[in-house]
Amino acid sequence: MPTNSVEKDALPVGRVTELTEHVAPFLRASEDDYDALESERHLSHGCYSTGNILESYLSHPDQLRRRLLLDLPPTGQGLEAIASSSSTLLRYSVNTSSPGFMDKLWSSPSVPGIAADLLLSALNGNDHVFRVSPALTLIEKHVGEELAHLFGLSDSESGGVTVPGGAAANSTALLIARNVRFPHLKEVGLHGISSPRLVILASEAAHFSIFNAAQVLGLGSHSVRKIPTTTDGSMDPRALKHSLDATITAGEVPLFICGTAGTTVRGAYDPLESIGKLAHEYNAWFHVDACWGGAAAFSDKLKYKLAGCEFADSIAYNPHKLLGVPQICSFLLGKDLRTFWYANSLTAGYLFHQDDSIPPSDLCPSPTTAASMGKLSNNHVEKPFYLNSVRYNWRTSRAIQNAPDPREVYDLASFTPQCGRRPDAIKLYCHWRYYGTEGIAKQVEGAYDGARYLARLIEEEPSLHLVGDVDVPCTQVCFYYVGASLKLTVSAPDMATQNTHFTRLISTGLMKRGWMVDYAPGSGRQEELGDFLRVACNRMTTPCVAEGLVQAISEVVNSDIETITPPHK
Amino acid sequence: MPTNSVEKDALPVGRVTELTEHVAPFLRASEDDYDALESERHLSHGCYSTGNILESYLSHPDQLRRRLLLDLPPTGQGLEAIASSSSTLLRYSVNTSSPGFMDKLWSSPSVPGIAADLLLSALNGNDHVFRVSPALTLIEKHVGEELAHLFGLSDSESGGVTVPGGAAANSTALLIARNVRFPHLKEVGLHGISSPRLVILASEAAHFSIFNAAQVLGLGSHSVRKIPTTTDGSMDPRALKHSLDATITAGEVPLFICGTAGTTVRGAYDPLESIGKLAHEYNAWFHVDACWGGAAAFSDKLKYKLAGCEFADSIAYNPHKLLGVPQICSFLLGKDLRTFWYANSLTAGYLFHQDDSIPPSDLCPSPTTAASMGKLSNNHVEKPFYLNSVRYNWRTSRAIQNAPDPREVYDLASFTPQCGRRPDAIKLYCHWRYYGTEGIAKQVEGAYDGARYLARLIEEEPSLHLVGDVDVPCTQVCFYYVGASLKLTVSAPDMATQNTHFTRLISTGLMKRGWMVDYAPGSGRQEELGDFLRVACNRMTTPCVAEGLVQAISEVVNSDIETITPPHK
Repeated sequence: MPTNSVEKDALPVGRVTELTEHVAPFLRASEDDYDALESERHLSHGCYSTGNILESYLSHPDQLRRRLLLDLPPTGQGLEAIASSSSTLLRYSVNTSSPGFMDKLWSSPSVPGIAADLLLSALNGNDHVFRVSPALTLIEKHVGEELAHLFGLSDSESGGVTVPGGAAANSTALLIARNVRFPHLKEVGLHGISSPRLVILASEAAHFSIFNAAQVLGLGSHSVRKIPTTTDGSMDPRALKHSLDATITAGEVPLFICGTAGTTVRGAYDPLESIGKLAHEYNAWFHVDACWGGAAAFSDKLKYKLAGCEFADSIAYNPHKLLGVPQICSFLLGKDLRTFWYANSLTAGYLFHQDDSIPPSDLCPSPTTAASMGKLSNNHVEKPFYLNSVRYNWRTSRAIQNAPDPREVYDLASFTPQCGRRPDAIKLYCHWRYYGTEGIAKQVEGAYDGARYLARLIEEEPSLHLVGDVDVPCTQVCFYYVGASLKLTVSAPDMATQNTHFTRLISTGLMKRGWMVDYAPGSGRQEELGDFLRVACNRMTTPCVAEGLVQAISEVVNSDIETITPPHK
Repeated sequence: MPTNSVEKDALPVGRVTELTEHVAPFLRASEDDYDALESERHLSHGCYSTGNILESYLSHPDQLRRRLLLDLPPTGQGLEAIASSSSTLLRYSVNTSSPGFMDKLWSSPSVPGIAADLLLSALNGNDHVFRVSPALTLIEKHVGEELAHLFGLSDSESGGVTVPGGAAANSTALLIARNVRFPHLKEVGLHGISSPRLVILASEAAHFSIFNAAQVLGLGSHSVRKIPTTTDGSMDPRALKHSLDATITAGEVPLFICGTAGTTVRGAYDPLESIGKLAHEYNAWFHVDACWGGAAAFSDKLKYKLAGCEFADSIAYNPHKLLGVPQICSFLLGKDLRTFWYANSLTAGYLFHQDDSIPPSDLCPSPTTAASMGKLSNNHVEKPFYLNSVRYNWRTSRAIQNAPDPREVYDLASFTPQCGRRPDAIKLYCHWRYYGTEGIAKQVEGAYDGARYLARLIEEEPSLHLVGDVDVPCTQVCFYYVGASLKLTVSAPDMATQNTHFTRLISTGLMKRGWMVDYAPGSGRQEELGDFLRVACNRMTTPCVAEGLVQAISEVVNSDIETITPPHK
């Protein structure tokens, strides 16, 4: 008979209350930063407690490696390990709660979100099947439905499920589109189809995960048509129409059109209404990547930017971006969740327990077929020839109509290819209840206001040049240095090199002063040559933050650039 | 100029210390359960604080829905929302910390894991790129390497990265195998290849995510060969050899062989050494799905079960299963991470910043090609004809040799298709430092010992019949009811129906007594007809837990079954 010794070691639950000890002061540092910004336009702590050495760590990882406690010892270190690991990790990490963190499309975590994350850890739940997560499942279903409604998807079959990030949301949408339109591919694979090619259309400014999804799913990157953007960075709908017609002429199938609501670099909103109407006209799946710009859905003032989402078959939206719900909290919303189920459902008897009282659907394959398919079910194979037709309306196909009512499907793992899943919806649930729709709207509007205010300040600086209009579409503010150190008469390639050089100098100079601002490559067109700075404003970007940043940029320009590189005059 | 009002609402960091208030008593309930089990062989609280009504909620979700606070109000509820949401959620959720939770392949969360989860929430980090997560990245790289070494992958290019779960680990492994062997598919898609078919081989007891990955990646479920198992549920290597030869004879390419270390239902370990040697002989990618049984790697006593992992090209392992690291903590380990990079790398200028001093590799496509490919890079297209050959050694191909040293690759998003990622490796890092390798080994061995002890107790019960040997291979114990209520002379289909009936009665009866034990469908062979009960023992399964469970089963049999259904004698 084994001993009982395991139990005592494995279960030190009394210690759970000691956990917040290290976390609270870390978060509180950002409050000092706001005070310092208000009184003297400087950050007190900034993005990293190690001061200006982060920059050197980024170039010399080995220096940092030596300072971390990487040892994974044979003998346990107990509570001391938590204390030392926590303090070392917090000391050498970027503090995304600082107002100076404007580097990425997410920032400080919300306190109700942190609370929910802690709840999830303690519950250690998994809402893949209802049996072990009844409450978590019902909350996720409810939050998904409410979120879908906010985006204008208000059918009784509309709703949403969480996925492990925006890239997964986009690739899952493409998978659903592929399997709904061509269900026989689940069995035979793309390998089996001789023609026509299935085409994906997205703007050249769309997120790389759209293009990557094409190769992952076996469609190949050659299947992607990159639609040109207009000067504001949004998709040109006339170019989309042109590309669709060319696709048809070439005998290809326009499978999937992706509109972006808030592009990664410039925050452009594609004209979703025009794109959505074209998608329906050409019978293509209409996906909206609103991972970033979807936050506007919470605000009555801003939701006009999302007009056209009501035409969408699927929408990707990440509350972990602008809202501040801690990572990861990402949703794939659907106009008709029966498509999600139909595209992804399968049987795994040890996981999904079928109610024996339900008669087998006419969509189920015979047992023999199911066995040969690795138990994938519901692959009703319609005659492929008319599936290719632009007139075949898969949205109202018999297979979709015969799928179960998604409101009555409680095993959430049957909606996506994922199996085990952390119930991330709880984080948005707690966040939403804490702030309310109006509180969230106020924060989102604050971020958009902050970006417009910053854009105006940048435009007023003679040494800086805004990319695009001062009335920025989302919360990014993009600009070049155009000050005294610049050679003014150079060729376009030289100009790109020069812009990239100064952009990186400024990004590095800001980092030394506690700020983090990222940069992005220009499109290569006249107005976007080389890397430019991209400030991602967030719900903490108050006027004094914007003013503090502009002052920090001026300091970098004056002390790090214009004194070192003499002006060419 | 916008107002400052956003800031104060959005940043209530002082409240973070109040978070653990609800969590600690929830976790502490499991301590009472141990006391109650030791003194009277009963659970005090059990898996759910709502007592025996969980069963009715599972059948009637609307009843539960009405008890949850689903309201997402226009006006924020502040701290009150956290308090009410937390207590309601904890009240109606399954307590996986209870010793009575033996339903799934994970159980109570470890306290150092909860601490790390809280740290991650507060940091709100994202280790997709090194720039914003230097410390988190270095820790993940280190933990991945140490874990790979533990499994016998000890090349200088060996290591691992986290993925969002076991299903993602398996599908990512298949994606890497496909793209490493046939890199041109990234561009042209499977659509473009006329033949031969790419074949995946896994045992019939492998996890469904392997079969699903085939359809997701466009290979189709027809590409999967399900290899028969022997009576203990492990893959028959002679059948594998036979299937490989048939594949070659049919002119197909054996692309990917998956061995399972710890199957989902019975915990069987496939003969990895034999399988690995065959994989190398036939030049197929060798993947080991050790999501569940990989925990044995920590124990000197148990690691013999994983012999053969040193032949693996990739290994999936989930510390969130037997170890008790909170969900999600899942790794994909690789013998040579250059294959991961080569299969997944792409350029997204706004995310991955290239060092301009590095000359472009000879593997990079021309800018024109890159543009047409949606910026996917490094698709060196070798002549497809010899890629199909069983003699083509892709493991030492020039493309792989020319890929960068993975130790010097710091943007972790370049190793998998995922973009943003919660740095889940930190949870294993804290857990490992807290318990040490020896402490983890003791817990893992405790779980295996607990399962063998339980199997012996079950075997001694006249009304229960073990599936398989009393010396169970992992920590699952599977059995049927064979008591007095059984009709003894029935046909195999009737026997399956009868077994399923009693299995579900017992599972339901246990649930009413605070225990959760799942069931799984039998293989259909004589020894596995219909659903059987499957107890997943875990690191908390001490002798008194096993004895308490057997006593609870006896109670169910005596009071719920044998008194209701009169014996057929």
